[in-house]
Amino acid sequence: MRILLKNGLVPYGSGYNSKKIDILIEGSKIVKITKDIPKNSAEKIIDAKNKLVIPGLINTHTHIPMSLFRGLADDLKLDEWLQKYIWPREAKLTKKDVYYGSLLALLEMIKSGTTTFVDMYFHEDEVAKAALKSGLRGYLAYGMIDFGNKEKAEKEIKEAKRIMKYIDSLKSERINFLFGPHAPYTCSPEFLSEIKHLADKYQKFITIHVAETKDEVKMIKKKYGKTPTHLLDSIGFLSEKVLVAHAVWLIKKDIEILAKRNVTVSHNPVSNMKLASGVMKLKELLAANVNITLGTDGPASNNTLDMFEEMKLAALLHKIATLDPSTVDAKTVFKMATENAAKFLGIRAGKIKEGYLADLVLINLNKPHLKPLTNPISHLVYSANGSDVDTVIVNGKVVMENREVLTINEEKILSKIDKIAKKFL
Amino acid sequence: MRILLKNGLVPYGSGYNSKKIDILIEGSKIVKITKDIPKNSAEKIIDAKNKLVIPGLINTHTHIPMSLFRGLADDLKLDEWLQKYIWPREAKLTKKDVYYGSLLALLEMIKSGTTTFVDMYFHEDEVAKAALKSGLRGYLAYGMIDFGNKEKAEKEIKEAKRIMKYIDSLKSERINFLFGPHAPYTCSPEFLSEIKHLADKYQKFITIHVAETKDEVKMIKKKYGKTPTHLLDSIGFLSEKVLVAHAVWLIKKDIEILAKRNVTVSHNPVSNMKLASGVMKLKELLAANVNITLGTDGPASNNTLDMFEEMKLAALLHKIATLDPSTVDAKTVFKMATENAAKFLGIRAGKIKEGYLADLVLINLNKPHLKPLTNPISHLVYSANGSDVDTVIVNGKVVMENREVLTINEEKILSKIDKIAKKFL
Repeated sequence: MRILLKNGLVPYGSGYNSKKIDILIEGSKIVKITKDIPKNSAEKIIDAKNKLVIPGLINTHTHIPMSLFRGLADDLKLDEWLQKYIWPREAKLTKKDVYYGSLLALLEMIKSGTTTFVDMYFHEDEVAKAALKSGLRGYLAYGMIDFGNKEKAEKEIKEAKRIMKYIDSLKSERINFLFGPHAPYTCSPEFLSEIKHLADKYQKFITIHVAETKDEVKMIKKKYGKTPTHLLDSIGFLSEKVLVAHAVWLIKKDIEILAKRNVTVSHNPVSNMKLASGVMKLKELLAANVNITLGTDGPASNNTLDMFEEMKLAALLHKIATLDPSTVDAKTVFKMATENAAKFLGIRAGKIKEGYLADLVLINLNKPHLKPLTNPISHLVYSANGSDVDTVIVNGKVVMENREVLTINEEKILSKIDKIAKKFL
Repeated sequence: MRILLKNGLVPYGSGYNSKKIDILIEGSKIVKITKDIPKNSAEKIIDAKNKLVIPGLINTHTHIPMSLFRGLADDLKLDEWLQKYIWPREAKLTKKDVYYGSLLALLEMIKSGTTTFVDMYFHEDEVAKAALKSGLRGYLAYGMIDFGNKEKAEKEIKEAKRIMKYIDSLKSERINFLFGPHAPYTCSPEFLSEIKHLADKYQKFITIHVAETKDEVKMIKKKYGKTPTHLLDSIGFLSEKVLVAHAVWLIKKDIEILAKRNVTVSHNPVSNMKLASGVMKLKELLAANVNITLGTDGPASNNTLDMFEEMKLAALLHKIATLDPSTVDAKTVFKMATENAAKFLGIRAGKIKEGYLADLVLINLNKPHLKPLTNPISHLVYSANGSDVDTVIVNGKVVMENREVLTINEEKILSKIDKIAKKFL
């Protein structure tokens, strides 16, 4: 089907200068961007007047089934939060819980303009089912942990392969598998090497938590005599196919390694602030030309999946941390949430360009907090929130129109979810 | 008129434990809170099922006409931002601009659940007209600056008195005047003393910017040999009737002074982050029992008036600044945005209690990002945003119902505002 977006305001080109222009979509792609495309060029016309058309936002680090734990434990340190609150609840999670928790999170992502996400959790085949249904683009990892136990390692690899096989069998253009060893402090170097070997063999990406807390770095240094990043590099783990999440506590040498190996970083400012993990060295990473993307982390440590908030907080956190408001500007964080993430994933997305994927989001500009329309990119980053998203298109298909989600029955999920989550209270 | 809120979820008492309960409003006040109030007790019934009923949020520091400058200048230091971008534009502002800019901001505040605000700007009589129309509760200060010039000081006092007289003549329960000397670095000690004298004479509050930037403190110390707070105290300026905004760069002695004089602080985390002003010492101020409230600052340095974001950022900023997630919790920041501000203003508001003002906000809980309903106060602070506000009641009158603003013609203002703001581009 061909879809024509008429008269939208489009931040276009590398400077994101907004132009009023039409966009024609055919199949999964943007095929034409120009003024005055005739209405008979498409089967469906979407009136984008008074709307800003942006590339769909890409959330590069989350754990979506954790939406079930939203608000259950706040104002706690990562260790206590995980050990006292999250892990005991995760032990109770069923496949069905993961499926419904995923649907809830997918609804939230659609309604806040995320079109692609990278997830790490368990029962990831259930996440895949939900993501397939939702219409979003997902990169899904089974979170693997061996704690140095060989038997556990074997089991984990078996489960990862099962999930990979399942996801590959879906033959979906949108749903993809990647490997997800949890972190250097929960996975042994031997286990990590084996996973790296498998990722090469099956040509998959890898995502892993690295240097999220000061304690983690201390632990790894004590055990291996190296920083987590250095440890990973010393076993040949790092490459342009690796996405590291958090990367808060890095030394200069770590940044050099990440740059040299073309590793992509998923920066999670809201989670880092909420769990008081620390401030990532964004300025230094940008100076070293490391590819930086944005992630919300799971909704239990944020507590939303709103990438607009993540963009604003990325800008704000580094202004205050450096006491310099020019450290990172609106365009830079918008690029992190779009283009940089697409670059890592190797998809033609994150920009509005002919030949690129039709992963597009329409923002309703007719709101008091988005007026006057002085600077659309500033408004996107500093004034908008997820609720301003009006229409979402993924892979050339309309997933939400005028805030009505077309792929998941929102009312049904919302009315069901409190009952499902009751056992975690 | 009597209004009955049926079956709302109400965070009640000092622990904010949520109960499903009915609220009866008569005139400007809450007259009854109990289960099963009969429907014939009121002329108007509002179905609050699946809604959270909270005290209206109180924004204790803003400059609402600056909504016209939203997005015009970002990623700049306070000095450059003020001198190169804001002041030249303010020179072009007409009374009409201030009136329409205020209406735009009032729309935004209503739609994001603010029921009371403290403003400082010029042409504040126009702000008063707009606020009167909006239905919100406003405390309005004419921002005064003398730069040590006696003639200027006299003019400023004349203008402040004119505004005071105008606002007092409105005889509104909602619209109040307060004195607004801009800051110790723009107002001479003699001028500040005179204003303090007038405030005592007319029994008005005072609000003033204090220690917002490091440079300001340096300048004041060089000129007077004292910190800004110490300087103000040395001229007898500080009391429980004074609201200081920002208070970022305080030394221990400053905190002791603020505590001793029962001064209230308006904490502005988003503005402080965006302008990279610095991190206020919240932990130390709380430990000294200083009354802390929250403000968004003007929409040109935020860039919204969303108090939900301000609450979240207050919690997040101090967690990361101290590397301790327990530094400030959801209940503490919610109290800052409600009860603490009402305490300063001397109004019975900020709590849901019989005999208190009916300044109430209904939050629509039937949204993916507010599910499951584990912990309402956590959701308010960490998950909600202004767009979740459904209905707003101020002084016993419905100002917005089901997101339709009843006091200001939203469509008209939104369609007009780009034309008005064009000259500032």
